[in-house]
Amino acid sequence: MYAVSIWPRGHEVNAVAVKVLTEGGHCLDAIEAALRFSEDDVRDESTGVGGLPNRAGEVELDAAIMFAPEGRAGGVGALKDTRYAISVARRVMEKTPHLLLVGEGAKEFARQEGFPEFDLLTESARGKWEEWKAESERPRAGGHDTMGTIAIDRQGRLGVGVTTSGTGFKLPGRVGDSPIPGAGLYCQVGVGGALATGVGEEAMRVCATFLVVELMRGGAEPEEACRQALLRLRALHALNAEIAGRPLCLAALRVDGAAGGAGLNRPGFAYARFDGADNRLIEVKPISE
Amino acid sequence: MYAVSIWPRGHEVNAVAVKVLTEGGHCLDAIEAALRFSEDDVRDESTGVGGLPNRAGEVELDAAIMFAPEGRAGGVGALKDTRYAISVARRVMEKTPHLLLVGEGAKEFARQEGFPEFDLLTESARGKWEEWKAESERPRAGGHDTMGTIAIDRQGRLGVGVTTSGTGFKLPGRVGDSPIPGAGLYCQVGVGGALATGVGEEAMRVCATFLVVELMRGGAEPEEACRQALLRLRALHALNAEIAGRPLCLAALRVDGAAGGAGLNRPGFAYARFDGADNRLIEVKPISE
Repeated sequence: MYAVSIWPRGHEVNAVAVKVLTEGGHCLDAIEAALRFSEDDVRDESTGVGGLPNRAGEVELDAAIMFAPEGRAGGVGALKDTRYAISVARRVMEKTPHLLLVGEGAKEFARQEGFPEFDLLTESARGKWEEWKAESERPRAGGHDTMGTIAIDRQGRLGVGVTTSGTGFKLPGRVGDSPIPGAGLYCQVGVGGALATGVGEEAMRVCATFLVVELMRGGAEPEEACRQALLRLRALHALNAEIAGRPLCLAALRVDGAAGGAGLNRPGFAYARFDGADNRLIEVKPISE
Repeated sequence: MYAVSIWPRGHEVNAVAVKVLTEGGHCLDAIEAALRFSEDDVRDESTGVGGLPNRAGEVELDAAIMFAPEGRAGGVGALKDTRYAISVARRVMEKTPHLLLVGEGAKEFARQEGFPEFDLLTESARGKWEEWKAESERPRAGGHDTMGTIAIDRQGRLGVGVTTSGTGFKLPGRVGDSPIPGAGLYCQVGVGGALATGVGEEAMRVCATFLVVELMRGGAEPEEACRQALLRLRALHALNAEIAGRPLCLAALRVDGAAGGAGLNRPGFAYARFDGADNRLIEVKPISE
């Protein structure tokens, strides 16, 4: 049994997954419970209830889940007025032939699956949006702290999930890396899983999590795989001044329990790791410029 | 100067790109012109005007464009009531910090960029939808014939684009591989580009076009890279009876002009190739089961 969740607050999120895993639960149940906990945490401006809205003042959620043993995945993008995006993503995986539903279609699907209308915008998040509108209306600088969990259960089944409200004050309808297999999350049976966080567009540009898993498949240690993927992104950044300097952080868990992470243009990245006995926060040294 | 467009009807589409390239035009202008030609072709049920609608009877378009020299990309998903999805995708790339806009947000962006409301549903496509509703309401079997073009212009600049109305009678809000870098399309400076067509979910599952470009980067010939990527998908299909047998076809163009393709579970795949002198249709032998 192993689990990895990202960011310092991932320590608490990972503990929720660990509880499910140690009780013998399924990796997908562990991931879903952990990410629902994050989505319900109103202190967290990056996921679910309390997430920062788009520039029109509406909270739009991206989430996805992937299950390695069957190569299955499901995701939602730009989902409004619905609690538990991660659970809707799981229903997309389990009940449709598709991998990604977005916008009004995703909302309609959520209603059919029994998820009621829910107002995600808290007073605090609305206040920050009003402040942003009054001050500048400029896109928010810096990265975004998507929450994600990789879990391997007692039966050795591997899964991965992510959930986010996306870049604060984004354009309406913007979908980032989170609901996209190979961008925000990826896993492969017999190899391992990976998560991305930061500016989602940068993960999409190099299929960052697919690349991490592919490098682990080729024999790279998890930390080295994350580092190599970020160096690939940095090479692209060298071609284009507009995107240079954008942050991206990656974390990976191999099926043997080895874990690692790396951050580009972002100090302070960390991930929580459950090694079968302890759930510990591990700080990540950013790649030097 | 080189160009590749997929499917037998890609021969005509490729000719549009070739005209722009031989007049000294930019690779992105060649791609945009070629795909707009496809989008305007009402005989074509897979792109733009005349594309098959979703199960609610609405045409929803996915499209994307990627420019290798700067690692840039832009895409739209589930875009309704708008002609020239490929041009809207190009605006996303050129005018926003994002890589993907979907649904109502994408439509709003298109209006702001001057694309007027346009009814994409032809009488013929509406008839097929009514027939489907009366007969079965079952998801449509088989693949889907996304149109895509890879182009290298006289200055050696590499780009790739795709456009599609997606799987016929799909769930509303379904986004497939087409607008997603590494799934429906990918290109990398100094290496080459790749396109996917078939069941989009299968391209997403293995980041098929990213994988093709990655394999070419490692030295594989274009045809072998496509074949290897499809074998990877076939290995996933072996884990999951529900998705086994779904078709996917891939085509690739290397920066030196070498091209190749491969098809899984789909006979009849072909691509048009312009080698600097001639535009020829090349038939692809499917991978044997």
